[in-house]
Amino acid sequence: MAVQTVASSTSGSTVDLGPAAALSCRECGHRVPLGPVFACEECFGPLEIAYDFSAYDTEELRKRIEAGPANIWRYAPLLPVPADVAGKPNLNPGWTKLVKADNLARELGVTGGLYVKDDSGNPTHSFKDRVVAQALEAARAFGFTTLSCSSTGNLAGAVGAAAARAGFRSCVFIPHDLEQGKVVMAAIYGGELVGIEGNYDDVNRFCSELIGDPAGEGWGFVNVNLRPYYAEGSKTLAYEVCEQLGWRLPDQIVVPIASGSQLTKIDKGLQELIKLGLVEDKPYKIFGAQAEGCSPVSTAFKAGHDVVRPQKPDTIAKSLAIGNPADGPYVLDIARRTGGAVEDVTDEQVVDAIKLLARTEGIFAETAGGVTVGVTRKLIESGVLDPTKTTVVLNTGDGLKTLDAVAGTGLTATIRPNLESFREAGLA
Amino acid sequence: MAVQTVASSTSGSTVDLGPAAALSCRECGHRVPLGPVFACEECFGPLEIAYDFSAYDTEELRKRIEAGPANIWRYAPLLPVPADVAGKPNLNPGWTKLVKADNLARELGVTGGLYVKDDSGNPTHSFKDRVVAQALEAARAFGFTTLSCSSTGNLAGAVGAAAARAGFRSCVFIPHDLEQGKVVMAAIYGGELVGIEGNYDDVNRFCSELIGDPAGEGWGFVNVNLRPYYAEGSKTLAYEVCEQLGWRLPDQIVVPIASGSQLTKIDKGLQELIKLGLVEDKPYKIFGAQAEGCSPVSTAFKAGHDVVRPQKPDTIAKSLAIGNPADGPYVLDIARRTGGAVEDVTDEQVVDAIKLLARTEGIFAETAGGVTVGVTRKLIESGVLDPTKTTVVLNTGDGLKTLDAVAGTGLTATIRPNLESFREAGLA
Repeated sequence: MAVQTVASSTSGSTVDLGPAAALSCRECGHRVPLGPVFACEECFGPLEIAYDFSAYDTEELRKRIEAGPANIWRYAPLLPVPADVAGKPNLNPGWTKLVKADNLARELGVTGGLYVKDDSGNPTHSFKDRVVAQALEAARAFGFTTLSCSSTGNLAGAVGAAAARAGFRSCVFIPHDLEQGKVVMAAIYGGELVGIEGNYDDVNRFCSELIGDPAGEGWGFVNVNLRPYYAEGSKTLAYEVCEQLGWRLPDQIVVPIASGSQLTKIDKGLQELIKLGLVEDKPYKIFGAQAEGCSPVSTAFKAGHDVVRPQKPDTIAKSLAIGNPADGPYVLDIARRTGGAVEDVTDEQVVDAIKLLARTEGIFAETAGGVTVGVTRKLIESGVLDPTKTTVVLNTGDGLKTLDAVAGTGLTATIRPNLESFREAGLA
Repeated sequence: MAVQTVASSTSGSTVDLGPAAALSCRECGHRVPLGPVFACEECFGPLEIAYDFSAYDTEELRKRIEAGPANIWRYAPLLPVPADVAGKPNLNPGWTKLVKADNLARELGVTGGLYVKDDSGNPTHSFKDRVVAQALEAARAFGFTTLSCSSTGNLAGAVGAAAARAGFRSCVFIPHDLEQGKVVMAAIYGGELVGIEGNYDDVNRFCSELIGDPAGEGWGFVNVNLRPYYAEGSKTLAYEVCEQLGWRLPDQIVVPIASGSQLTKIDKGLQELIKLGLVEDKPYKIFGAQAEGCSPVSTAFKAGHDVVRPQKPDTIAKSLAIGNPADGPYVLDIARRTGGAVEDVTDEQVVDAIKLLARTEGIFAETAGGVTVGVTRKLIESGVLDPTKTTVVLNTGDGLKTLDAVAGTGLTATIRPNLESFREAGLA
């Protein structure tokens, strides 16, 4: 494996993050050494990881992956992590089920094979475990001792749990008035959980301030100063889908859009597999899914715009409710380049889709999963998505975390404990 | 594989349930053909599966298991299921993580290796997916078209989800006044969810009535008429623990007790692995864990009794709250035979243990997991459990399902969105 050792920009020590060679600006290509930075010093564009995969032999790499552990670390040679990552204390997320959704396919009229990639199987039951696991390795490499983030839910739990396992201190910032259930889920891991008097934007602004202050020294904010590493975790969804399909690209994949980062990294992961020769090169289409109540990217897509106009979110799909998605323009570019689309569904359609997926496949998705399944249905009905092609739909979280969205679901009958009452209810 | 084809006692058709050869009475040994029956016609003792493993070669079997899927079906040759089970629509539970809990070990002073078998990673986030998956295959074999059960929580969701995936009708009976969250979790899969005006005992009595009535024909009650098959699912916990330890028996294993079935089947699974030569024979100790508010088995153990006196449950560990555990006497026998023990902890100790596990390992357990971790701590402190031995603790469910138990957990600080307020709170 081509291990690169690059001087960290802050600590002066050397970092081993496996095949990660440098940080590179997505806009201007300017390269800097690996470090806890996220914006280009030249043009303020987003930094992402540049890899050195040149030493890999395709079939050796494939065998090595297949012999690896049943978690994301089977792909360690393609991630910004040290080669011995699997032996370090972390939550070992990933390798979640790719469910062949034959019942759902029948209901939607899909004949080419329909699959649900079910990330509710991760340790804290959302895809966030994938990205946090990468940020944790970067934090270790840069000598950080506190893991932090701003969050309204899934991320708080993922950071708290990962920090606990790894022996890091954690300090997570959330709006002070979150629902009690989400607070418990974030607090249970015993780290600092700080409520900020303000909304999520206030929380974010405060975190940016803290990073620039001596008080934030030694702190790794997974979704801010560790973002280039963090974001790479989403590539593992692409790797797993292809390997689970028998090292084959799907024809169509439907991905939820919050910041848009996940969708862009899934595209990056598919492109890497093609370049590495691990899958046969062929066209694939990437579809983005939003809730109508927070649909800045689908609105821009439908209007033919290249820029994304911010919106004020108002939807039950709170884990996707980012009104000003940083990677929106990249998402538009990928959807158009691959022949995909970006679509949105109403909250009512989200709830219907959650119930449809549960009823047909026994998968209880959070609202984000309702968004992708609902958009899939809508795109099939409108003829945009081809039902004769192999299609993968992502479910990125767990219905237990968004019970309120389906609170109306309940008993189908109430009876007295005898057979007469049972028969009267028409259940026999 | 020694496939047995035995005439079903009800349908007259032949059933293929792999190595399952017959049903055998645990008390008197009377054998009957495989069928949807659960009590011995001679002595009313519990029926369990008798297998024919005689054709297996140890090393061939080991290789076959290791090459199998990353779920319970890798052990299909040792379960009452057809050989092609992995290709049938079901939730494919199991192969959950065995977490090396080094942080928890340090806190508890365990030096011999401490592991948490974390069954919250199952599809509906409890170990019930394992047992329901067996019952589903039996239901298929016997030509049933409706899957049913009485439940107060985890089982309802597991049955609803499994039925949805398999294309079965489901009809689940629960007390009519369950918490809304549990009702939603059980209802989301779209089957019939019937509230019974009465308590859990009333629900159970009604189900027994329904089985004997023509209205219940074609119904598989997973925990009643399919119980002999259902119960075998718990063996997979023993198989997985040993395989994940490198085909090695643990020295000590701590198991929660509700009906006691799980503990007896874990012992059965360990004994099978020894007899099949898959692990080296050596002593192991099985410890049972109860909540003080429902501790009929630990009370009997401490008093040196062979019979278990029923209790009226009053504990937050509701998934373990069976006051009259059917397998209680067998549990006492196993604990005594292996040199283990049965212990209980208070609700306060349960909550403390949930927090301890979350804080040290990033695992958010339901109350039953708090019971096993709490009992482990208590048994170490009292010198009953040897900290120098390899110890496995089961977590059978997910903290998201019992949020109420830790509802007091919350923010560690609330601040205004500025650095001054951050410093005042002593967080820097």
